[in-house]
Amino acid sequence: MHIMVIGAAGMIGRKLVAALVANGELGGRPIETLTLADIVAPPAPEFGGTVETVAADLSGENVAAGLVARRPDLIFHLAAVVSGEAEAEFEKGYRVNLDGTRALFDAIRLEGVREPYCPKVVFTSSIVVYGEPLPETIEDTYFLTPLTSYGTQKAIGELLLADYSRRGFFDGIGIRLPTISIRPGKPNQAASGFFSSILREPLIGQEAVLPVEESVRHWFASPRAATGFLLHAAEIDTAPLGFRRSLTMPGLAATVGEEIEALRRVVGEKAVKLIRREPNPAVAKIIAGWPQTFNARRASALGFRAETSFDEIIRVHIEDELQNTLPV
Amino acid sequence: MHIMVIGAAGMIGRKLVAALVANGELGGRPIETLTLADIVAPPAPEFGGTVETVAADLSGENVAAGLVARRPDLIFHLAAVVSGEAEAEFEKGYRVNLDGTRALFDAIRLEGVREPYCPKVVFTSSIVVYGEPLPETIEDTYFLTPLTSYGTQKAIGELLLADYSRRGFFDGIGIRLPTISIRPGKPNQAASGFFSSILREPLIGQEAVLPVEESVRHWFASPRAATGFLLHAAEIDTAPLGFRRSLTMPGLAATVGEEIEALRRVVGEKAVKLIRREPNPAVAKIIAGWPQTFNARRASALGFRAETSFDEIIRVHIEDELQNTLPV
Repeated sequence: MHIMVIGAAGMIGRKLVAALVANGELGGRPIETLTLADIVAPPAPEFGGTVETVAADLSGENVAAGLVARRPDLIFHLAAVVSGEAEAEFEKGYRVNLDGTRALFDAIRLEGVREPYCPKVVFTSSIVVYGEPLPETIEDTYFLTPLTSYGTQKAIGELLLADYSRRGFFDGIGIRLPTISIRPGKPNQAASGFFSSILREPLIGQEAVLPVEESVRHWFASPRAATGFLLHAAEIDTAPLGFRRSLTMPGLAATVGEEIEALRRVVGEKAVKLIRREPNPAVAKIIAGWPQTFNARRASALGFRAETSFDEIIRVHIEDELQNTLPV
Repeated sequence: MHIMVIGAAGMIGRKLVAALVANGELGGRPIETLTLADIVAPPAPEFGGTVETVAADLSGENVAAGLVARRPDLIFHLAAVVSGEAEAEFEKGYRVNLDGTRALFDAIRLEGVREPYCPKVVFTSSIVVYGEPLPETIEDTYFLTPLTSYGTQKAIGELLLADYSRRGFFDGIGIRLPTISIRPGKPNQAASGFFSSILREPLIGQEAVLPVEESVRHWFASPRAATGFLLHAAEIDTAPLGFRRSLTMPGLAATVGEEIEALRRVVGEKAVKLIRREPNPAVAKIIAGWPQTFNARRASALGFRAETSFDEIIRVHIEDELQNTLPV
């Protein structure tokens, strides 16, 4: 089969490509061709089949049509301007996250007009489609009230995905990712950054700053679980979804205090001592508007699985990012 | 004040313009200028102030910018390709209902970049943003799962309205209209047509066809109530809405049987005898997926009011459409 990954150079994109290459097949079908696209050409993995890497901005004229003309059987659409950037640069966020997504969906529709075509499309959404007012536990039938332009663009993408799928233009499935933790890489300025950094930095003997109370609760999955969601989404039969094409993924509801206790259990007190408390009311205020716990009933029933403890999330990070060794 | 009505030639648009002209003021401010736009130039009402009528397709290049350059204080955006047409003509529906709406919103944003500007925008949505699965009563926090392209386009319009309002580009409010009954005019092919025609035709001594069981329940408001919703939306302070800019309007939950009983009470058995039962399984199937009852708590708390009986809805029709006389 021919698989296209749009957004293949991003953190999840690279892990997804690595998993596809390592597996060599998807749902029992051998992978013959990989087309990897991103705003900059992604690195080409070592792979027995055909790999093509493409630098492509979906919102550019005819770019989506050019990609879709290759007629992949399966398209992962992960490309997006991230939350902070979409908030800071209004026009860029709408151009990339809304126009780019719509250009892709329309290119698939028009390719099908030319010659019958109905690929599977896996679209990444996010739990930031939810905003206030939020109950303590969010059910699958709770309404979407995004509080950022990024969340708005993802919610619109979900609506388009559902309508284009209902029309039979493609077979879409939307995956609302939990907050990814432990996110590999350097600390960044995202308001959510500390959820990862209070574990990631101490694991390599470095100090990290905790800007909120330990009672703050949020919804997490590891990068490995996120990759697993996307692969599972690509494999399952979408018939049980009906017209409801987007799913909140299962995750781990945990407090910052529970994160820290897990760190203590897995690597000990020395690591925990590297967490420096530095309350930041601005960050605390942003986080207060975020969802805490979901009842991801539909996705769980369809076989999606996440970690069930932060101990597990920390071990996944040690295995996947630290070559299974702790430098401290 | 300067009020612009986009979609002024439609059924609700004409009634809204008539009410604005009759009132001469809105929220205590005299109306000096009316700009009335539609795909064909709407009729100009007799009005003491300035009236301009414009033929305009919002999705055309620079059309929205041209309208917004007049800097109205208040914009009613009612223009849309209707449900059946948006379903039959995919590209036209997205062009008018999504691109047209976005073009208007962006034109307002860009006018504000040129020189500070933040008009009030009243956007008409519809209860067809709701689809399956539906509980018997739909709460304000229930999720939107449109089952038509029209419903999808309205749901996207709501999301854009909320984000553009959150950003401060305009002061938006979205009004989810119930099914309008009794819709004036000729019978049409809409699946919902019978809800109106089983009253409208017998009231003028003509036969009407009832394609479903009398137990079918749905959510109604009169054209007069719909006009009232839009005027009230234009007048109220939107601060209590927070970031939740769209509201399900109050309505009357009634069965077809209750409609018929009201007809019997208001005009008698002779009219009821003009309803011919002709079961149509295709229509029944479409209607089965429609919402039945809402708990429009937020809108009611904000002072929006609809009829509370079909007797009242029938009397409104007799007063407003039949010059308060019954030909039968």
